[in-house]
Amino acid sequence: MGPRFEEYSVETTRKLQDPGLLLVSANKLGKINVMTIGWGLIGMFWGRPVFMVAVRSSSYTHRLIEDSGEFTVNVPDEGMKDVVQHCGEVSGREHDKFSECKLSLLKSRIVRTPVIAQCKLHYECRVVHKLDVIPRLVPVRFFVRAMIERVKGLFNRHGNYRSLYFGEILAIY
Amino acid sequence: MGPRFEEYSVETTRKLQDPGLLLVSANKLGKINVMTIGWGLIGMFWGRPVFMVAVRSSSYTHRLIEDSGEFTVNVPDEGMKDVVQHCGEVSGREHDKFSECKLSLLKSRIVRTPVIAQCKLHYECRVVHKLDVIPRLVPVRFFVRAMIERVKGLFNRHGNYRSLYFGEILAIY
Repeated sequence: MGPRFEEYSVETTRKLQDPGLLLVSANKLGKINVMTIGWGLIGMFWGRPVFMVAVRSSSYTHRLIEDSGEFTVNVPDEGMKDVVQHCGEVSGREHDKFSECKLSLLKSRIVRTPVIAQCKLHYECRVVHKLDVIPRLVPVRFFVRAMIERVKGLFNRHGNYRSLYFGEILAIY
Repeated sequence: MGPRFEEYSVETTRKLQDPGLLLVSANKLGKINVMTIGWGLIGMFWGRPVFMVAVRSSSYTHRLIEDSGEFTVNVPDEGMKDVVQHCGEVSGREHDKFSECKLSLLKSRIVRTPVIAQCKLHYECRVVHKLDVIPRLVPVRFFVRAMIERVKGLFNRHGNYRSLYFGEILAIY
């Protein structure tokens, strides 16, 4: 994997906070999407390097990861703030964000999901564990937010829980 | 919080892999325990810095965190390998690991759970979310391990699942 994975975590966690990271997913038929994430955890689990991401069940990304069991995390370069913002605002169901943002894709080294050429750092991850976080599990201090989510969920046939995907980091470059 | 929390993640994640970190927990009556962890994730969640740890439901630490909703993570200094090993081998139910390992405790800045004086770096964390991971949720590739856990669980009245504690990082020093 080259340098040890934790060397990159400072830069990655800083960009996670501002402006966000780009999560790329693809299904087995070759449909590809990108979304912005502001939540993520990096470390060791089951003795392996892991990148954990949270994805809403109603999102297009969720559907693609469910199909492939893979994702890539791409750390944006300076000057990509507008791209990151746009990829967090629209859905891949209606938008081809790659062409809208002039992003090019590169073949990954291990997984089948590609990485974004314009980004400075790439994580290739394979899902080794998944947990669904449904609103009623949130603690009391998040109760109000949970109620709002639940009401929103009534208008959304996909529901509105989040899946936590534990992705084993197979490559970083 | 002084320097941004991600600056410390390289050192912390490196020590997590070898020899491990020291997780301190305390209940409201002042019972204190320390255990070794080799699993943990650091990053952002709900817009906050988070340290996620996994604790077996059968452990004494689990009981203490359930009572207090807090923990501290202590990054050992060089030369503490034997301490880290011992703290991972015996239970705080039968052993006073602090006296056995000649560890002294310091008052924390924000939480009530103390930190270990001999360690070089300390994270004070308050639990903001908890997820119980029961063996049947593990994916197929962990099926054999899950079966072993389940058989072990038959002989253990506390069960043998793991709780994932998402601790908001309130201080690092």
